[in-house]
Amino acid sequence: MSKNIIIASTSTLHDGDYLEYLLPELKIHFENCKTILFIPFARPSGITHEEYTAKVALAFAKIGKVVKGIHQFDDYSIAIKNAEGIFTGGGNTFLLVAQLYKKDCMIALTEAVKNGTPYLGTSAGSNICGLSMQTTNDMPIVCPPSFKTLGVISFNINPHYLDADLLSKHMGETRETRINEYHSFNNVPVLGLREGSWLKVTGDKVVLKGNLTARLFLQNQIPVEIESETDISYVK
Amino acid sequence: MSKNIIIASTSTLHDGDYLEYLLPELKIHFENCKTILFIPFARPSGITHEEYTAKVALAFAKIGKVVKGIHQFDDYSIAIKNAEGIFTGGGNTFLLVAQLYKKDCMIALTEAVKNGTPYLGTSAGSNICGLSMQTTNDMPIVCPPSFKTLGVISFNINPHYLDADLLSKHMGETRETRINEYHSFNNVPVLGLREGSWLKVTGDKVVLKGNLTARLFLQNQIPVEIESETDISYVK
Repeated sequence: MSKNIIIASTSTLHDGDYLEYLLPELKIHFENCKTILFIPFARPSGITHEEYTAKVALAFAKIGKVVKGIHQFDDYSIAIKNAEGIFTGGGNTFLLVAQLYKKDCMIALTEAVKNGTPYLGTSAGSNICGLSMQTTNDMPIVCPPSFKTLGVISFNINPHYLDADLLSKHMGETRETRINEYHSFNNVPVLGLREGSWLKVTGDKVVLKGNLTARLFLQNQIPVEIESETDISYVK
Repeated sequence: MSKNIIIASTSTLHDGDYLEYLLPELKIHFENCKTILFIPFARPSGITHEEYTAKVALAFAKIGKVVKGIHQFDDYSIAIKNAEGIFTGGGNTFLLVAQLYKKDCMIALTEAVKNGTPYLGTSAGSNICGLSMQTTNDMPIVCPPSFKTLGVISFNINPHYLDADLLSKHMGETRETRINEYHSFNNVPVLGLREGSWLKVTGDKVVLKGNLTARLFLQNQIPVEIESETDISYVK
């Protein structure tokens, strides 16, 4: 089987409920799944695995899916291997990656996604689809053993991509400046995915979805805006 | 000798030149120094050590100080040990910390600052004064061997502290949310230093300076605003 992945910038739009804007797409994406395995390790705002899983179950119930948290299983690798569909939610990417390594999930998850298990990532769960988590926006609240992630696409994701506020008097780095700093030391392309955008990966094909453009950063090149529905499989 | 440190949120205010707002303070802080050793490792926007040092030299020339970049020395530890005064500039904290470890500067720098060598940090250079760099705002563009930093104060710094924009429709985490996530896993106090604020450390005394309040986060407590001129030596 071939890859079947949705990589979303955010779980939630400002004017919507959790996962709401994605539900029509998820109904198709997970159409052959009765249950979804949820990976809650990123724990947004420090909520527990149980709380996070309950929140996700509520959203997926709207499209008739049952959600099980990976923390409910004895063997995480087997849970991933046996999953009909997998969702990794957002939160803190350092925490997510640290836990994926600690619980020996990284290899199992990479294999499952490469072998065609339908996968959804939002925010931190999207970050880990890239070659590394090095273009996360999150704070290093814990120290993972490595920044290397699933690499099921051939570039890195910057979720919640934010254009510079030209009226701001704040002197902290803009998102674009940060990504340019990344490219001072790394040559992996970076896709800035704005909230409401997602990537649909089908086999080797990677297509931008949603109403917005995305911003593509290649090392030593001027960033370009990618239109929705563009096939960006060439980016590597 | 006892500690003599300035820990500034930012090098530059929106309406000012590089280090301009701090120069009156720096004139006193470095009054016994003819030369300042500059640590350019954080390389904002990926600029070279030479470019960064030239920029800093230009600012310090206004108060009659000569600046030497640490990269110009053969032995970095000895350069630090012999320095009359030290300035670590901003940029990327992961890069700064990775380089400080790689170049065996971490112990020498801790010792020098603890022994009273006048030190100035801005942004990333302030982040490293805390117990760890885990409350940085920067992207993990390189992987340091440890997040542990100088620990010349007994809490962590969040520089460029930014209040939530209540009108924003962006769904990325606010700074306060990020710091609260840090406190889900760590009990080190965090001081959010707004741009224009700095800490003046004299011996064991730590005083907030500048016109603004700072936001103090203690684990499991509601954050509080600290007034300028407050002695916060009790925070640990």
